[in-house]
Amino acid sequence: MIDVLLIVIAICIIALGLAAVLTRNLLSQDEGTPKMREVADAIRVGAEAFIKRQYSTIAMLAIVSAVVIFAIYYLTGQQAIALATAAAFIVGAACSAVAGVVAMWIAVRTNIRTAAAAQTSDGKALDFSFRGGAISGLIITSMSLLGVSLTYIALGADPTHTPFVIIGFGFGASFVALFAQLGGGIYTKAADVGADLVGKVEAGIPEDDVRNPATIADLVGDNVGDCAGRGADLFESTAAENIGAMILGVALFPIFGVNGILFPIVMCSLGLLASMIGILSVRGKDGADPMDAMNRGYYITAIISAIFLAGGVYYLLGANPGWMYFVLAGLVGIALSVAFLRVTLYYTDHHYRPVQDIANASETGAGTNLIMGFSVGLETTAVPAILIGASLLISYWCGTMTGIPSGGLYGTAVATIGMLMVCAYVLTMDTFGPIADNAGGIVEMSQAPDEVRHRMDKLDAAGNTTKALTKGYAIGSASLAVFLLFNAYMADISKLLIEKGGAAFTTVNLASVPVFVGALLGAMLVFLFASLAIRAVSKTAQSVIDAVRIQFRDPAIMAGTKKPDYAAVIDITTQGALKNMVLPGALVILFPIIIGVTMKHEALAGFLMVATITGILLALILNNSGGAWDNAKKYIETGVHGGKKSEAHKAAVIGDTVGDPFKDTAGPSLHVLIKLLATLTLVLAPLFI
Amino acid sequence: MIDVLLIVIAICIIALGLAAVLTRNLLSQDEGTPKMREVADAIRVGAEAFIKRQYSTIAMLAIVSAVVIFAIYYLTGQQAIALATAAAFIVGAACSAVAGVVAMWIAVRTNIRTAAAAQTSDGKALDFSFRGGAISGLIITSMSLLGVSLTYIALGADPTHTPFVIIGFGFGASFVALFAQLGGGIYTKAADVGADLVGKVEAGIPEDDVRNPATIADLVGDNVGDCAGRGADLFESTAAENIGAMILGVALFPIFGVNGILFPIVMCSLGLLASMIGILSVRGKDGADPMDAMNRGYYITAIISAIFLAGGVYYLLGANPGWMYFVLAGLVGIALSVAFLRVTLYYTDHHYRPVQDIANASETGAGTNLIMGFSVGLETTAVPAILIGASLLISYWCGTMTGIPSGGLYGTAVATIGMLMVCAYVLTMDTFGPIADNAGGIVEMSQAPDEVRHRMDKLDAAGNTTKALTKGYAIGSASLAVFLLFNAYMADISKLLIEKGGAAFTTVNLASVPVFVGALLGAMLVFLFASLAIRAVSKTAQSVIDAVRIQFRDPAIMAGTKKPDYAAVIDITTQGALKNMVLPGALVILFPIIIGVTMKHEALAGFLMVATITGILLALILNNSGGAWDNAKKYIETGVHGGKKSEAHKAAVIGDTVGDPFKDTAGPSLHVLIKLLATLTLVLAPLFI
Repeated sequence: MIDVLLIVIAICIIALGLAAVLTRNLLSQDEGTPKMREVADAIRVGAEAFIKRQYSTIAMLAIVSAVVIFAIYYLTGQQAIALATAAAFIVGAACSAVAGVVAMWIAVRTNIRTAAAAQTSDGKALDFSFRGGAISGLIITSMSLLGVSLTYIALGADPTHTPFVIIGFGFGASFVALFAQLGGGIYTKAADVGADLVGKVEAGIPEDDVRNPATIADLVGDNVGDCAGRGADLFESTAAENIGAMILGVALFPIFGVNGILFPIVMCSLGLLASMIGILSVRGKDGADPMDAMNRGYYITAIISAIFLAGGVYYLLGANPGWMYFVLAGLVGIALSVAFLRVTLYYTDHHYRPVQDIANASETGAGTNLIMGFSVGLETTAVPAILIGASLLISYWCGTMTGIPSGGLYGTAVATIGMLMVCAYVLTMDTFGPIADNAGGIVEMSQAPDEVRHRMDKLDAAGNTTKALTKGYAIGSASLAVFLLFNAYMADISKLLIEKGGAAFTTVNLASVPVFVGALLGAMLVFLFASLAIRAVSKTAQSVIDAVRIQFRDPAIMAGTKKPDYAAVIDITTQGALKNMVLPGALVILFPIIIGVTMKHEALAGFLMVATITGILLALILNNSGGAWDNAKKYIETGVHGGKKSEAHKAAVIGDTVGDPFKDTAGPSLHVLIKLLATLTLVLAPLFI
Repeated sequence: MIDVLLIVIAICIIALGLAAVLTRNLLSQDEGTPKMREVADAIRVGAEAFIKRQYSTIAMLAIVSAVVIFAIYYLTGQQAIALATAAAFIVGAACSAVAGVVAMWIAVRTNIRTAAAAQTSDGKALDFSFRGGAISGLIITSMSLLGVSLTYIALGADPTHTPFVIIGFGFGASFVALFAQLGGGIYTKAADVGADLVGKVEAGIPEDDVRNPATIADLVGDNVGDCAGRGADLFESTAAENIGAMILGVALFPIFGVNGILFPIVMCSLGLLASMIGILSVRGKDGADPMDAMNRGYYITAIISAIFLAGGVYYLLGANPGWMYFVLAGLVGIALSVAFLRVTLYYTDHHYRPVQDIANASETGAGTNLIMGFSVGLETTAVPAILIGASLLISYWCGTMTGIPSGGLYGTAVATIGMLMVCAYVLTMDTFGPIADNAGGIVEMSQAPDEVRHRMDKLDAAGNTTKALTKGYAIGSASLAVFLLFNAYMADISKLLIEKGGAAFTTVNLASVPVFVGALLGAMLVFLFASLAIRAVSKTAQSVIDAVRIQFRDPAIMAGTKKPDYAAVIDITTQGALKNMVLPGALVILFPIIIGVTMKHEALAGFLMVATITGILLALILNNSGGAWDNAKKYIETGVHGGKKSEAHKAAVIGDTVGDPFKDTAGPSLHVLIKLLATLTLVLAPLFI
């Protein structure tokens, strides 16, 4: 067993080594003009201050939760694993916090170097920002794999027992990710919406204009929301999905032995290796479309992952004559990851109908722009839902063709793992976006020459695309993963029921009244959570707007002769974000516990499954409509429909504003939510029987 | 048996008699000034032309569907009932069409008389418009009850067999209601949005200004969307719910005999009687708040219904010693109807926090208005979902306490019936709204004196409130009803399976992959349908806007010296609405058939249930956010936040525009959709085993 884990640990060490080399290389680069440094320093200080305050709050919440988990296990007859589960929770939470902090730390140091590089070369600017993303991607993915592996060893490495204890690690990671994504998401969009509405719409000054006191807060937001938040999100995705697959592997222990249990983490580590090759293949070229290089890297990663997948399945599960079907299931997962990227591109890129429809509709005003954008958002559920459904059915079928009992479910697990193999590369692209965005902001605010701005605009546009694409990937992988986590939940409940002399838990009968009611409440919780997340942005943005308006009354600020008070806006945004993240977070943790305790495990399963379905679809709606609104605005800015300053553009700016909390607060928080619900029910299972 | 049905028929005849008396009385009233008549005539002609073209299209679709139904039954070994089911479908469709036409016919005759009455008395104006609504309410409810009763008799009145054939009637009614609501909803909102965006926002002229060429189309829309569409919707609700309850009654035949099967329609007829008393108790009083009189009438109806419920249960089901528990279940339904009205009021009335929050957010522009409104919409799912869940659990518990096998489900059926008893009264309030709205438009367009306008404004405001409230009722009753229709579907499938020598269908296991995939696709279909419905409004509205802009270029029209070409806009709207209703309608009919045929009855059940849950919640979101945006705008118009013409008002107008297709097209169409899915799966059950 240790042999196999050694592969994982070795690959992680290589990845961390590569990250160290890249970091060293990056930090040795030029930091640009003094003006750039001034802006970048303000961003860094603001981001670090926010992260510090945010994680202090989260830490307190996590410690209370750990005590509660310990008490629950202790009082429900699970004394033997009470301490281990609570400890795993704390370790998971701590690792997730580190993941978020690392992502932010790298981002605030890469942005300035990217801006400096843009003074001379757009290829170099792409290299720097992409590698900054890669550092985060490699560190976060390795930490996730190392965290699971080492916790597994520390908890005794008992193949049929340890996976059920290690779920604490997954829940800890989800717990922190929820608050990190929610708080960061509220921060980034409240600042962005506030800055846009007062700056662009009311005062008529450009985005990132130095006179706007909310601009620095907006740039801080990219780092704390998109980088730190998403880092924590993808950290817990990898962790939770690996753990879920390990639990399913327990059912196959008699057939595959420990190999079936460790298969997920081994495959993910091979995927990490593939991602490293993909990352190193990306080279910026002056004058070229940055998306070309990144797309090529992605396809390289996917192809190498597919080869590693076949090898890994043969090595670990080859004892079964039907192992080729597992390879096929894994390929379904890899193919799904590509398909999701394509679909997301279609819905959020201005070369295709949806964004063009929204841009057209802007000609008749904000009303029709919004109606069309909302309609596009709702439409984007169709193809992804069919893709997810088809992947589940095909990979299930593959699994059954192996002839193994429970093989079908393991087939869906292998598909999930296949999709997750490219995770480190996707995370790289994801973090690249906000770094490029930030670098663009620094260039703009330091009033660099036009050619530098143009170089950054191109990179920024690519960053917007990658951000949209990786959200598509995140929701696609979450939807497969959660089906896996359901089954882990059912296995966990079955284990507890059988220990008490009962029968296994195999049916979630939606036709029974309590399960139907549970399902109804599950769907409702998702909408309510989105409501609170969006409202939090609205409330915080209103404080930002009020603060900016007061500063705008000073003619010296508007004339550009006096520096606005950026720190005041940063402070207001920080306070608002922290205050407003607690209620939605607490709601989604307490509500399922209440359902489970009062209505028991079957109704809770209905709750969980329908919450997940609704969560996936609502996240798609929010992410894609937000992305489409954003790009419709950018499309108009290229000169169509009257270009900048036209009525159509004003309408499109309002659409973009509405889309902001959709795509960067509520949508990504829903990704975390659906996985949090799954890990929460897993960990607290003893309460629900 | 015939004895019991005689009660139903007698009450229906009384109701139709009362409707005749009210109609005669109303038609003898004054028709106002020549200018008013001119406007009203244009509305009547436009509405009648649209309805004629719309129902021709629907008739063709219905005939094709009837042939398909016959073929399906004939080819799946159900020859004995093939013709009867297809015939029942046609009768149901025809009755629904008549219901829609009657509602429209009355509305276009009542609007002018209400406008005329407003010249002297607001009490009289309330009386007329409310009684116009009552005529529709009484006729539609009686037709539904008579239709089900007479079809039951015509099909042989075999208690354990006929309910399974009569489902064709329910499907026919749903089929027509879907297209009527969808087409009418697209028409009304395309005209409204178009008129508002060009008139209020661009040209800065008031609503219903005579110079705006889209105003008549807007007023036509109230009649074809709100009156005809909602009439067809509530007709099919009553029909489908009665049929669903009758099928559950079949399971109890050994205990209650035919009484258990006819119980639903008898109770609904008693509810109709209660509604008549409630309607007659409403008397307009000059200077009083019209809501007071209507609320009093509602409470009278509810209380009398509760008394009749107790009597009816005792008379029909009193053989069971636990009959009191059924009374309790019915009271839960009546209480739920009141609770839904209160919750809807809270979310859409400017006296409470949600609408005030939206009005506040308008101060910082359209962006924050929209974000807040959307957040409020999402929030409104919470309390209704908990209320529905609690009602299902309590009424199920009541049913089990009777000690009857399957008593729990029958308990939920009795709760549904309790909620439906007040249906005729609710329909009256519902139709009152658009009549008052129309009368207001006539007063405005005929340039009547200010005091007449003020009288109508008050009535119009009350109409907005009742429209929001009755939508709340419609979605609440639909959610209970659909749970009942599920169980009817399972009973129907079980009957077919048992006939073929199989076991009964009792479990919908959400943990199985096909059922989960079905559930995912069901939720997706709801979002996709809403997308298409909203887009249809957007597309049609853009044609309206283009047409109006061309006319506005004529300075004579803007100066008010030349009459705009109303008919041209009516024609464009009619074409757009008819063209755009076919795709979404066809989608929701064909998609579940494909799922059911390929993935069979259990996956289809998962599809149906989760589509219903999502549909209920999305309808709440769309209806309530739309209502809240509308009332936030109206609230600002009372003078707060800068009043009319302020920036906040402009922002609120955009919010209202976005809410229009939400609350009057997509939301109400979803009510129909979820019942259509249920009746469709019931009728086509032989395909899915």
